[in-house]
Amino acid sequence: MFRHTKKLQFEAKPEKPDAVFAMKLQELIGGAFGEMTVTMQYLFQGWNCRMEGKYKDLIMDVATEEIGHVEMLATMVARLLEGAPADVTAKAAKDPVTAAILGGMNPQHAIVGGGGALAADSAGTPWNGKYIVASGNLMADFRANVAAEAQGRLQTARLYNMTDDPGVKAMLKFNLARDTVHQNMWLAAIEQLQEDGLEGPVAPTALFDEENQEHANTIWGLSDGTAAPEGRWASGPAPDGMHEFRYLDDPQPLGGPASAPPPDPALYGTYA
Amino acid sequence: MFRHTKKLQFEAKPEKPDAVFAMKLQELIGGAFGEMTVTMQYLFQGWNCRMEGKYKDLIMDVATEEIGHVEMLATMVARLLEGAPADVTAKAAKDPVTAAILGGMNPQHAIVGGGGALAADSAGTPWNGKYIVASGNLMADFRANVAAEAQGRLQTARLYNMTDDPGVKAMLKFNLARDTVHQNMWLAAIEQLQEDGLEGPVAPTALFDEENQEHANTIWGLSDGTAAPEGRWASGPAPDGMHEFRYLDDPQPLGGPASAPPPDPALYGTYA
Amino acid sequence: MFRHTKKLQFEAKPEKPDAVFAMKLQELIGGAFGEMTVTMQYLFQGWNCRMEGKYKDLIMDVATEEIGHVEMLATMVARLLEGAPADVTAKAAKDPVTAAILGGMNPQHAIVGGGGALAADSAGTPWNGKYIVASGNLMADFRANVAAEAQGRLQTARLYNMTDDPGVKAMLKFNLARDTVHQNMWLAAIEQLQEDGLEGPVAPTALFDEENQEHANTIWGLSDGTAAPEGRWASGPAPDGMHEFRYLDDPQPLGGPASAPPPDPALYGTYA
Amino acid sequence: MFRHTKKLQFEAKPEKPDAVFAMKLQELIGGAFGEMTVTMQYLFQGWNCRMEGKYKDLIMDVATEEIGHVEMLATMVARLLEGAPADVTAKAAKDPVTAAILGGMNPQHAIVGGGGALAADSAGTPWNGKYIVASGNLMADFRANVAAEAQGRLQTARLYNMTDDPGVKAMLKFNLARDTVHQNMWLAAIEQLQEDGLEGPVAPTALFDEENQEHANTIWGLSDGTAAPEGRWASGPAPDGMHEFRYLDDPQPLGGPASAPPPDPALYGTYA
Amino acid sequence: MFRHTKKLQFEAKPEKPDAVFAMKLQELIGGAFGEMTVTMQYLFQGWNCRMEGKYKDLIMDVATEEIGHVEMLATMVARLLEGAPADVTAKAAKDPVTAAILGGMNPQHAIVGGGGALAADSAGTPWNGKYIVASGNLMADFRANVAAEAQGRLQTARLYNMTDDPGVKAMLKFNLARDTVHQNMWLAAIEQLQEDGLEGPVAPTALFDEENQEHANTIWGLSDGTAAPEGRWASGPAPDGMHEFRYLDDPQPLGGPASAPPPDPALYGTYA
Amino acid sequence: MFRHTKKLQFEAKPEKPDAVFAMKLQELIGGAFGEMTVTMQYLFQGWNCRMEGKYKDLIMDVATEEIGHVEMLATMVARLLEGAPADVTAKAAKDPVTAAILGGMNPQHAIVGGGGALAADSAGTPWNGKYIVASGNLMADFRANVAAEAQGRLQTARLYNMTDDPGVKAMLKFNLARDTVHQNMWLAAIEQLQEDGLEGPVAPTALFDEENQEHANTIWGLSDGTAAPEGRWASGPAPDGMHEFRYLDDPQPLGGPASAPPPDPALYGTYA
Ligand SMILES: [Ca+2]
Ligand SMILES: [Ca+2]
Ligand SMILES: [Ca+2]
Ligand SMILES: [Ca+2]
Ligand SMILES: [Ca+2]
Ligand SMILES: [Ca+2]
Repeated sequence: MFRHTKKLQFEAKPEKPDAVFAMKLQELIGGAFGEMTVTMQYLFQGWNCRMEGKYKDLIMDVATEEIGHVEMLATMVARLLEGAPADVTAKAAKDPVTAAILGGMNPQHAIVGGGGALAADSAGTPWNGKYIVASGNLMADFRANVAAEAQGRLQTARLYNMTDDPGVKAMLKFNLARDTVHQNMWLAAIEQLQEDGLEGPVAPTALFDEENQEHANTIWGLSDGTAAPEGRWASGPAPDGMHEFRYLDDPQPLGGPASAPPPDPALYGTYA
Repeated sequence: MFRHTKKLQFEAKPEKPDAVFAMKLQELIGGAFGEMTVTMQYLFQGWNCRMEGKYKDLIMDVATEEIGHVEMLATMVARLLEGAPADVTAKAAKDPVTAAILGGMNPQHAIVGGGGALAADSAGTPWNGKYIVASGNLMADFRANVAAEAQGRLQTARLYNMTDDPGVKAMLKFNLARDTVHQNMWLAAIEQLQEDGLEGPVAPTALFDEENQEHANTIWGLSDGTAAPEGRWASGPAPDGMHEFRYLDDPQPLGGPASAPPPDPALYGTYA
Repeated sequence: MFRHTKKLQFEAKPEKPDAVFAMKLQELIGGAFGEMTVTMQYLFQGWNCRMEGKYKDLIMDVATEEIGHVEMLATMVARLLEGAPADVTAKAAKDPVTAAILGGMNPQHAIVGGGGALAADSAGTPWNGKYIVASGNLMADFRANVAAEAQGRLQTARLYNMTDDPGVKAMLKFNLARDTVHQNMWLAAIEQLQEDGLEGPVAPTALFDEENQEHANTIWGLSDGTAAPEGRWASGPAPDGMHEFRYLDDPQPLGGPASAPPPDPALYGTYA
Repeated sequence: MFRHTKKLQFEAKPEKPDAVFAMKLQELIGGAFGEMTVTMQYLFQGWNCRMEGKYKDLIMDVATEEIGHVEMLATMVARLLEGAPADVTAKAAKDPVTAAILGGMNPQHAIVGGGGALAADSAGTPWNGKYIVASGNLMADFRANVAAEAQGRLQTARLYNMTDDPGVKAMLKFNLARDTVHQNMWLAAIEQLQEDGLEGPVAPTALFDEENQEHANTIWGLSDGTAAPEGRWASGPAPDGMHEFRYLDDPQPLGGPASAPPPDPALYGTYA
Repeated sequence: MFRHTKKLQFEAKPEKPDAVFAMKLQELIGGAFGEMTVTMQYLFQGWNCRMEGKYKDLIMDVATEEIGHVEMLATMVARLLEGAPADVTAKAAKDPVTAAILGGMNPQHAIVGGGGALAADSAGTPWNGKYIVASGNLMADFRANVAAEAQGRLQTARLYNMTDDPGVKAMLKFNLARDTVHQNMWLAAIEQLQEDGLEGPVAPTALFDEENQEHANTIWGLSDGTAAPEGRWASGPAPDGMHEFRYLDDPQPLGGPASAPPPDPALYGTYA
Repeated sequence: MFRHTKKLQFEAKPEKPDAVFAMKLQELIGGAFGEMTVTMQYLFQGWNCRMEGKYKDLIMDVATEEIGHVEMLATMVARLLEGAPADVTAKAAKDPVTAAILGGMNPQHAIVGGGGALAADSAGTPWNGKYIVASGNLMADFRANVAAEAQGRLQTARLYNMTDDPGVKAMLKFNLARDTVHQNMWLAAIEQLQEDGLEGPVAPTALFDEENQEHANTIWGLSDGTAAPEGRWASGPAPDGMHEFRYLDDPQPLGGPASAPPPDPALYGTYA
């Protein structure tokens, strides 16, 4: 069960409205790596976590924080949209500055949201449930969490450069910091999983004996770039300590021709 | 530019058809972490890579391999669907085994695909372009690549347990092995990026001075689970070597109340 | 079966083209509460209506009208797009007014629609079948119909303020009027359902005896705002005449801890 | 900002697992009218509310409760999936009962969720941000809230009949009760809005003078059913107290022919 | 403007209910090539048609017919769902025949639609506006119309083999016939467009002088199959009468390396 | 299996960057008829082709070429985005030219793609797997292929008029030429299918005896336009050589009233 205080985790006050930036900021609300994603991703991971204890408690701490991040951003968007030209007419739009604002803003911020945030990204695409990852395997999921926080911090950094409003920048500095600690935290949790003997670096820790050992260490050189063998992935020990990398220069296919069987006559596939 | 040989990278021959398993196998074709995703993810990453050389060449090698993985799985699905009961009538469906096959298969495999694979996942949801990640920042993207291969190997392992067809199992063993080497490879590439001084562990390597330092190392304890401070994320040095973790037991909000400004009268928000 | 006359239900002639407004007007065609939604919502409700007679006949009357509303709006959009700068080059775009039009218009109006309307909303998101509601329970569906017409009239009113074209305003006045009568009509139909003894105010009229009576009248105070108990929802009789409202100030959870069972080993969830 | 306790708002313990019912129960998590929808709908409405005080506080109370409803259902789904046949082989599936379970369950519950809930509905379609309504106009939004709770209670009632597990039924009784009080509560809030003079029954309270009065009270008889005029929507005063209903038996179109202007030559529309 | 009669264009009466077939039949309602698609595709094409006269009149005739096809199918689905086991419990589901029906039916037919049709396909994916094609170029659009009717007739033929209910088969025979005449009709309309001198076989009839003539007649042999040059596409005159086909056996790339420019520092792409 | 060379099939070098045009060009990458669609459509058709030989080899040749088209366009987009104003602040946006670029570009090109292409169309909607057609029936699929190439060439022609950059125009001339030869090629393949006796003009070549002959040749006049009978679809022989067209002026419905059966009480449909 959850409880709510009306106070924001961190202040979200722009110096002045900016409807164009409000649209861009939607990426951090409803984008593939926005706060709705990490909120739902961590909540489902926590609910799906099979061990009571430190991992589950950590996941629920962070999940709960993230709901408050959606709140901060939604509040910021509503404040950035204040005074956006909601009733501007065709004639007024001939002033280039107004026109630029109109051109650059998401019309749904006015028509649908009435000056409030949307559950969508900066291109207006709605958030959807396929953005989240919650598999029950903590190694696989923590990898996804690091990735989500890395993309999130990258997008926040880009947005930080797209405004000079001190109030917006102040909030984004907080968000950058949280994305830093969250990346560090999931990286530490990955180390912890291995220290606790729960998972290895390659997920899942299973079926290594059954998989084709001769295909578990080779990079297939299928593009004519010649530099790929220069990296540490082309020779030497693999990070899992179990394999020795090998680069195949001109690999040949191992299977027979791709072919589909004769069609069922009741399906009317073309055949003779 | 690309070229194609009709031979499969690895053999894809089931011992006998199994329409129910064909539906499940769709997860590895058109699921969020299926082969269409890694194909498109690596292609767009390669095309968006800003440095000529080993990173770009590696990405294009693997991207090109992944197209062939879609091919192997699509071929397998067509063969698993051979002889699925395309013309069975209501009467025949009263035989429980046939009924179970009918109940468990995706009707679109017959009606839409005519016995061939679909660009969809195991629940019939179509693949979409939001599954892929290609940001131009290699650290952020390689984190996403490890995550994708981890989820992919996990799903492959689960599917491996859901069949006893030796032909299917043989192919899945190959897939498991490729997911192992790809996880190792992206992990090695992450180390290489740091050795080459291109990126740090936290992405992007930027704005650390500007972000709120006092908020870049704290875990906020917002759920009443008590074990979260027991992990290595709660104290000691963070993986980036730049921060010291700290756990906040009863953190207080730092911002003022969340509130939206008075609405523009032309938008007819409720207000008094 | 349907028949069509080429005449519009109401005139749809703008005084002059306006490609930016054409994009915004798409909200009324393919938005979540646009005319495609009410068309399909009422058609499926009518076909799914279980009683012959006045309710079904009303639904089909209005459904048929709504197809004509899509027609009016699609015609208006095509006329507003006349002469939009389809061949303007990078150079010409340096004129700010043209640039604003280009920036504010949906590029798909030219590239995909060839100057015609799209089955999409004002942010370019395609209409989809999840927007519609047709449950077979008329009370639940008429509630959804009132809601749809209210959102529709609200959006129409906002768009009315975004243009000063007398031809567009004339058509929107008609649309506003139709949204008014449709709201009134569905509200009247809700009263009629109760007068006819078919449904109560709370849908569905079933399982009241089985539901937890002690939880059917309490508002849980889970946010620290203090004004919620001031409303008429916090005490006194509920609209259904069957319950007495009560506000809980500091409600405690009634269940045990959220926890997931040990994972099936074949699924490789992390567990120890 | 939010806080979380590990205790569930209400107990969510099935007597025994049932993977088929787990799939159906997903409708209440990620369906168009599931708990994810009301959670996000009320959160965005609360953040977008323009008046401090009782309305906003109520919305935030209920929004916060709804997050806990997602939690209860996700926990129930994980428990219902316990022991689902994750490793069953083609051979085993020839037992009809096992086959039925396999046929009726969502394969993603095992392959993707590892035995945990998904952010999707009972047909496997992912939840998306277009399901929510938050317009800033409280009358329009409260109409949508009543509609959402009505559809939600209807679906809960249907699911209640699809199981005989006493633990599941106990939780659904609680859910039914909450849907009852929430319907009553939003209906009371609609009355309160009118008593407070903030909104009228038709949303938004604006532009009545400008809309076409002669079209604001007529039902157009466009389907050949003859019973539509028998309802109270066909004559007498409308619920808003401002109009007198009228039924038009054989209404004629008021506009000219639907026609699109000559195409821009640069768009290559067919024309002569 | 449209009018409606309650009579169906053709009878839609199954001999007896069949919930599994009802789910499959949804493909013809809300699938990519179902009746909702052709309804909306032809309506938007008609409204977007730039010439008054025979083409536009034909399109509107057929568009109006298609709305009635959705109606026939939605009626059939509701009748096929009669008596589907809406309240069956876990225990009852142990009867294999009932279990098969439950496994094979779409749970949303009961939970969401209350026994009525959905705006979705046979895998439960909602219909969306991207399925339709209405470009303003009649040749390009009539090609799409033939394709849609061909896929539609193919799917209808497959479904015809999946039932032995005489009532369903009777309706599908009518649908097959309509798909036949519609394919013939659009093929005739393509011939007519050319006879009238409005369009050539290749759409659009424009820019032939500007396009690279040396690349407008060659098939690039990029897969190692050797039989491709045996078809009439590999030599001889092309259907447009303007080109002579040529097959390139070992074609070489004409461009330089694919490479992306140095990244903007403000975007933090990896670069050195 | 596939191989890749770093050289592009054709050069993709703009004379200078143009972020607004980059957004428009996305239509040819991730639009419904963009290169991702034809890539995946032809790949799945090839893998689903049931006959070894010339048809399958042709499909795989073209499919492989299309992957290279995505590559050309993605490279062009990255080059067009060079130097787009990634860090422009609110103040700078008051310069109308900069503002227009900002207004007209997709913000995700900077925030998400870091200056690279997206798997989306010109309105930012992600590509999805429902765009492709691969039914196993070659006649039905080749019809769809002609349609896809026709829409693709039409969109390319429109985009050709929206730029005056000689480098972009040079690449689009190549693309136009490829769309011309591909249209001709699929038209030739349709003729070949008939010459080889594999399929007739109406797909599929089946069930002609069973379909309702009296409904397989009539155009139903359901719209009041009077010119429809003037076309060659209204009389004379149909293209399939098997039917004689007939136009019905005032066709009457053949079925009874649309009605749904009494609802199952467990579903709580409204009924009396
Ligand atoms: Ca966050
Ligand atoms: Ca792979
Ligand atoms: Ca309307
Ligand atoms: Ca609830
Ligand atoms: Ca039809
Ligand atoms: Ca192409």
